[in-house]
Amino acid sequence: MALFRNAAGRVAAVDDFCPHRGAPLSLGRVAGDTLVCGYHGLAMGADGHAVSMPCQRVRGFPAIASFPVVEQHGFVWVWPGDPALAADVPVPTFEWLGNPAFGYGGGIYHIACDYRLMIDNLMDLTHETYVHGSSIGQPEIDEAPARTRVEGDHVITERHMEGIQAPPFWKMALRLCGLPDGGLVDRWQICHFTPPSHVMIEVGVALAGHGGYLAPDAVKAACWVVDFITPETDTSIHYFWGMARRFRPNDAEVTAQIRDGQGAVFAEDKQMLERQQQNLLAHPGRKLLMLNIDGGGVQSRKVIERQQAGQVLA
Amino acid sequence: MALFRNAAGRVAAVDDFCPHRGAPLSLGRVAGDTLVCGYHGLAMGADGHAVSMPCQRVRGFPAIASFPVVEQHGFVWVWPGDPALAADVPVPTFEWLGNPAFGYGGGIYHIACDYRLMIDNLMDLTHETYVHGSSIGQPEIDEAPARTRVEGDHVITERHMEGIQAPPFWKMALRLCGLPDGGLVDRWQICHFTPPSHVMIEVGVALAGHGGYLAPDAVKAACWVVDFITPETDTSIHYFWGMARRFRPNDAEVTAQIRDGQGAVFAEDKQMLERQQQNLLAHPGRKLLMLNIDGGGVQSRKVIERQQAGQVLA
Amino acid sequence: MALFRNAAGRVAAVDDFCPHRGAPLSLGRVAGDTLVCGYHGLAMGADGHAVSMPCQRVRGFPAIASFPVVEQHGFVWVWPGDPALAADVPVPTFEWLGNPAFGYGGGIYHIACDYRLMIDNLMDLTHETYVHGSSIGQPEIDEAPARTRVEGDHVITERHMEGIQAPPFWKMALRLCGLPDGGLVDRWQICHFTPPSHVMIEVGVALAGHGGYLAPDAVKAACWVVDFITPETDTSIHYFWGMARRFRPNDAEVTAQIRDGQGAVFAEDKQMLERQQQNLLAHPGRKLLMLNIDGGGVQSRKVIERQQAGQVLA
Repeated sequence: MALFRNAAGRVAAVDDFCPHRGAPLSLGRVAGDTLVCGYHGLAMGADGHAVSMPCQRVRGFPAIASFPVVEQHGFVWVWPGDPALAADVPVPTFEWLGNPAFGYGGGIYHIACDYRLMIDNLMDLTHETYVHGSSIGQPEIDEAPARTRVEGDHVITERHMEGIQAPPFWKMALRLCGLPDGGLVDRWQICHFTPPSHVMIEVGVALAGHGGYLAPDAVKAACWVVDFITPETDTSIHYFWGMARRFRPNDAEVTAQIRDGQGAVFAEDKQMLERQQQNLLAHPGRKLLMLNIDGGGVQSRKVIERQQAGQVLA
Repeated sequence: MALFRNAAGRVAAVDDFCPHRGAPLSLGRVAGDTLVCGYHGLAMGADGHAVSMPCQRVRGFPAIASFPVVEQHGFVWVWPGDPALAADVPVPTFEWLGNPAFGYGGGIYHIACDYRLMIDNLMDLTHETYVHGSSIGQPEIDEAPARTRVEGDHVITERHMEGIQAPPFWKMALRLCGLPDGGLVDRWQICHFTPPSHVMIEVGVALAGHGGYLAPDAVKAACWVVDFITPETDTSIHYFWGMARRFRPNDAEVTAQIRDGQGAVFAEDKQMLERQQQNLLAHPGRKLLMLNIDGGGVQSRKVIERQQAGQVLA
Repeated sequence: MALFRNAAGRVAAVDDFCPHRGAPLSLGRVAGDTLVCGYHGLAMGADGHAVSMPCQRVRGFPAIASFPVVEQHGFVWVWPGDPALAADVPVPTFEWLGNPAFGYGGGIYHIACDYRLMIDNLMDLTHETYVHGSSIGQPEIDEAPARTRVEGDHVITERHMEGIQAPPFWKMALRLCGLPDGGLVDRWQICHFTPPSHVMIEVGVALAGHGGYLAPDAVKAACWVVDFITPETDTSIHYFWGMARRFRPNDAEVTAQIRDGQGAVFAEDKQMLERQQQNLLAHPGRKLLMLNIDGGGVQSRKVIERQQAGQVLA
């Protein structure tokens, strides 16, 4: 897929394959409303139809695929399925998206694993204790039971820890909110899966005894962990990660600091997920366990399967 | 294939596979007229027959393949087909090859593409405008129509541009010839394909109005672009490229300067060709277009197909 | 396979696959007698049974494979076959192993070749002349015929050279033994293959005329070359190499010097073996020769085949 922004700034997405000789259009350059192939100059329109080519009529050229695209709040949303169905599907909305009360920073990783392993990972945060012990993990996480519930296509796994010490990341967040970082806190993690493969996680701490997740803003530090998972192949993904925080939204230094920290934490997941994927490929016949803590991932997979079956039947 | 030069300096080419235990002979060393295997010392003759081995009779050893080889004017020509047919095929001759009026410099690239994609590339120089915009490309190239004709197994695609500004490379060449580089020129590109996969391209500029390609030597700068394409696998080649120029033939500094510039330009083709090859492998069913500008490549492929069919029938 | 040492220091080997979600246990950490999975905290016992997991009963979890392990004299011996048969098979014993009269140093290489190519290499030391010409090779090696004999499952190939100059490595060894390094010596190489794939090589030199291999210790320098070959895949091995010397057993500097030299020599074999393997994979139909010098490898392969057939029949 080749994405380009025309002279007016509008984004388009077309198949990355010039119909002339198969060169990748992504090596080309933009001219007016077209993406000009970098090999022989065929000018491709946003709709996948050739517009012009030097010394050549292009009327009969076969079109290539183009994809419905919407740009909103700094994200480009591409609809890779049947274009006729795109209009019926609204762009996802999230509390933090385009909301000036939030500061946002994030990045992209390429990870060699099935996208569903990434969903499992994010819908079960007990792994923080083991994979991220030095930053956000703490033993209390896997001592507090998680509850999973399903509301339509929306899967929610939540866990509340009361009267605990904040781990290093949250001590920092408390300080940034002007709150004391030495006392006990209530901590929460509420993971939301929505199709096709977004996982948004409400995370935060409040000074202990004020109601935890429901405590007033003045005594808590809270964020959304943002995870857009775009499958590339059966065993690789583009992973768009970020954090939308409700404190100091315009402080670029805080944005950079959190992004660097989150990038380091999520790199730890990358190693685990890729090695897990290799293990599963090496032993395709082995059944995995589905425990209580896996409920979020299990339910999310069921939603995906239901949607995929629906698309085929529709 | 392992090439070696015996004590007398004669070149030989044999299968890179020691008949003893399969070690690559190319890791060995030359002794007298033999290439001695670097594993256990089997001495291999230029004809593929084992000559000797320590403490061992080699009379009954199976021979390995050897290939007819001719060395001429700095190139080694190997005949990989039926040795019996080699004698009937003369080594190619070219105006510039071994001719002291020409200065030559060049290099080798390994490119991961079908050799026919390289031929397409060289038989259609409209790509210069897009791929090589900063050195030899200019918009006038794809505004001037190209004509392709076939003479037996020889395919010629030519394009003539009249009264244009010279692009940077040719301004430099004009200066090296002692000619003014600021005025208008006539420019030509005459691509010659000959089997199995050589593409020689006459390129040059003449001060405008003196007859272009036919202008007297005193008012023009001219070169042969040299392209020997040796397939390695179905999707990779050894690409021997160079330039034989008719000016300042003995000036080593000019040779180095042109080789460096040409190496940089041809590296741009390498990226495009490899990405094009990947695209074609990812979409094996897609048909490509064959336009006027593709005539040179299309005709060259026909010659190749004719020759391959002939070899099988012969 | 994941190896770990419990709190008491005892070594265990289990399948590197957590029964929960397939994460590699080798990314975990040791706690008490268990290896704790680095993803979600499942604690795995040395016997392959899950011991505990936070907030989770593990009684019904399927066990993973565990492997009988013995640690002895600095080596860990793993039995990858049927555990019931492990007790019947004693850990191999060698003259040098755990013997304070010997100094030992060694290392590990990963080599991309069939383990039998490594056995061939070690059971035929004529290759020293060609592969290791600057250290231990010398022309006299392949001028002296080797004799191979088989005693049960034990294959022995030996070669004796009399009245020769010592190559650089052995000159050094003579000096370290306080012996003159300038005169003639008798040299020997006695290669011992024993199943599954150990090759121990007695090597040494004695001042000429004192009986060679049988000469009294006072006039000779002698070592065991140690080669444990652990197949990883059909075309890769873990190669544990080392040298057990009978002189200056406690001199750490000599140990380091010999290990560095041996590491450099065996790296030369690595290149040859990997290129040989690639050649064999590229030409699967070609038959190799089996010469006198290959007798050790040929006989060793017969022992392996006999044992493999026996295991299947048992």
